[in-house]
Amino acid sequence: MAAHYTTTRRVEFRDTDTAGIMHFSAYFTYMEQAEHEFLRHLGLSVHLRDEQGVISWPRASAKCDYLGAARFEDVFQIHVSVARLGEKSVTYRFRFTRDDTQLALGSITAVCCRLDLGGGPPRSISIPPAIAEKLAEYVTAEPELAAEPERTAESMDENGTS
Amino acid sequence: MAAHYTTTRRVEFRDTDTAGIMHFSAYFTYMEQAEHEFLRHLGLSVHLRDEQGVISWPRASAKCDYLGAARFEDVFQIHVSVARLGEKSVTYRFRFTRDDTQLALGSITAVCCRLDLGGGPPRSISIPPAIAEKLAEYVTAEPELAAEPERTAESMDENGTS
Amino acid sequence: MAAHYTTTRRVEFRDTDTAGIMHFSAYFTYMEQAEHEFLRHLGLSVHLRDEQGVISWPRASAKCDYLGAARFEDVFQIHVSVARLGEKSVTYRFRFTRDDTQLALGSITAVCCRLDLGGGPPRSISIPPAIAEKLAEYVTAEPELAAEPERTAESMDENGTS
Amino acid sequence: MAAHYTTTRRVEFRDTDTAGIMHFSAYFTYMEQAEHEFLRHLGLSVHLRDEQGVISWPRASAKCDYLGAARFEDVFQIHVSVARLGEKSVTYRFRFTRDDTQLALGSITAVCCRLDLGGGPPRSISIPPAIAEKLAEYVTAEPELAAEPERTAESMDENGTS
Repeated sequence: MAAHYTTTRRVEFRDTDTAGIMHFSAYFTYMEQAEHEFLRHLGLSVHLRDEQGVISWPRASAKCDYLGAARFEDVFQIHVSVARLGEKSVTYRFRFTRDDTQLALGSITAVCCRLDLGGGPPRSISIPPAIAEKLAEYVTAEPELAAEPERTAESMDENGTS
Repeated sequence: MAAHYTTTRRVEFRDTDTAGIMHFSAYFTYMEQAEHEFLRHLGLSVHLRDEQGVISWPRASAKCDYLGAARFEDVFQIHVSVARLGEKSVTYRFRFTRDDTQLALGSITAVCCRLDLGGGPPRSISIPPAIAEKLAEYVTAEPELAAEPERTAESMDENGTS
Repeated sequence: MAAHYTTTRRVEFRDTDTAGIMHFSAYFTYMEQAEHEFLRHLGLSVHLRDEQGVISWPRASAKCDYLGAARFEDVFQIHVSVARLGEKSVTYRFRFTRDDTQLALGSITAVCCRLDLGGGPPRSISIPPAIAEKLAEYVTAEPELAAEPERTAESMDENGTS
Repeated sequence: MAAHYTTTRRVEFRDTDTAGIMHFSAYFTYMEQAEHEFLRHLGLSVHLRDEQGVISWPRASAKCDYLGAARFEDVFQIHVSVARLGEKSVTYRFRFTRDDTQLALGSITAVCCRLDLGGGPPRSISIPPAIAEKLAEYVTAEPELAAEPERTAESMDENGTS
């Protein structure tokens, strides 16, 4: 069974909106926080410095499906795993829960890039083996997320999502 | 040919990050701003009030593929169209450009919900015909977005994205 | 000697900017997070519900003096105390440090208000004694903050602030 | 009479909170947007590049007094003037109005700094005469802002602020 990493946050007032719930865009900043915390947990960083320059991870894509609503001061969990480990990119999966309630399922795809000491734009590289090995432990077999809007509408009626 | 709506923004300092470019999460707040501006353009609002209460549009999903980088004070365009008009939900498509350069392709799926005057959770409803007719003019035939991370890696090398 | 409350945060990537440091506006959201955490620590909340409605704390003013720069992944402390306890308002003081380095000194003044069950705008009230007693333990005798821009310029040269 | 500069914004959904009004921290990002727009209006930028490197304006302090509440989709004005022009620093004043209603009075003090091409921390410099002359036209004689919390409490009762 694959490893996974879990962290916990609390809904801050600034991340709520007039509808009284955590704003949909805040899930993306929480995903990034969880990704960075996960990388630190592995002894890595999203900005790894070595003798040739910096290895960084620009985002190729990000998405989130919303299944439930979180309110001010709610405590929630973010479960991090690796949905896909490519030659040059990794797709993280983030499952947001408030105890037994599913709040959201998200993903971020990041591309391994080198920033040379001499400047110039980032260029994509193969993920270094030492990093790939650590990420590989967190690859899960769960199927790809797929938004099904009409089904979500039904589910929202049940869960009071937003 | 379908109608589409375009608005313009400038990259604000708060939305840049240590990498010197607009943060990936900022695209989601700009998508929402463009959606709300588009709805006002149609004489609607994301919070329409009628005699029964409020019609609102909680988000079912959001995603964005990143193709290029935007820097502080760059002026960019957001092109809004309707990718899919369902019985109870609408998927907006957002194309971010800086003149001839593609920056990002995003989408938001929102579910039509009624908030009753007496309170209680939102419940999904069929999109009222007067609203559906207006949105229908903006439905485009473009194929669904699909993130292809390894191809994005190649494209990033060409465009210096992040 | 007055009590004070300390909490810890890490600079998140979203809160940095093109200058490579934590954006000045992020200090205000961290002050609010620290205030709310402090109130929970006292067994209170920034939205206390009782049988008459809700006691809430709209902001009358906020300020921050910047003394040093914080970078991505820096861990910093926020020290909370009460600078002034009025009849209807409280001024919190927030001291940001990264271990022995002063980063910022801020304050928020909040007004005690009641939101009635029947609706209507918030109206200011005397701080209820049970709350005032708890806050009184954290009143400090430190002098009021005063921005002295030219002196800050000197201090910035020494500390590489921003 | 001194010149002043006015710009207009609309309250975006992301900047509202559970209390239904624009979050107090959002005023600081709007002040910065107005400052940068004002500098562009003068033919300047907050990051001016010359042959020696970059002239930038790190913040020494920021504050805001809140006098009224702004709600989703409200259009408001930001009036920019110069409260104080020092040897090495400038204090901008920002007055937020919604037509005839005062919403907030804020200020930002920024220190003129040079970032050398060779790297190293920013160091404060005298504001170059060509810049100081332009800013001098916007110096106003209005008295310094002073938060008076108890008076604000009264004013809040009249204006339904937050």
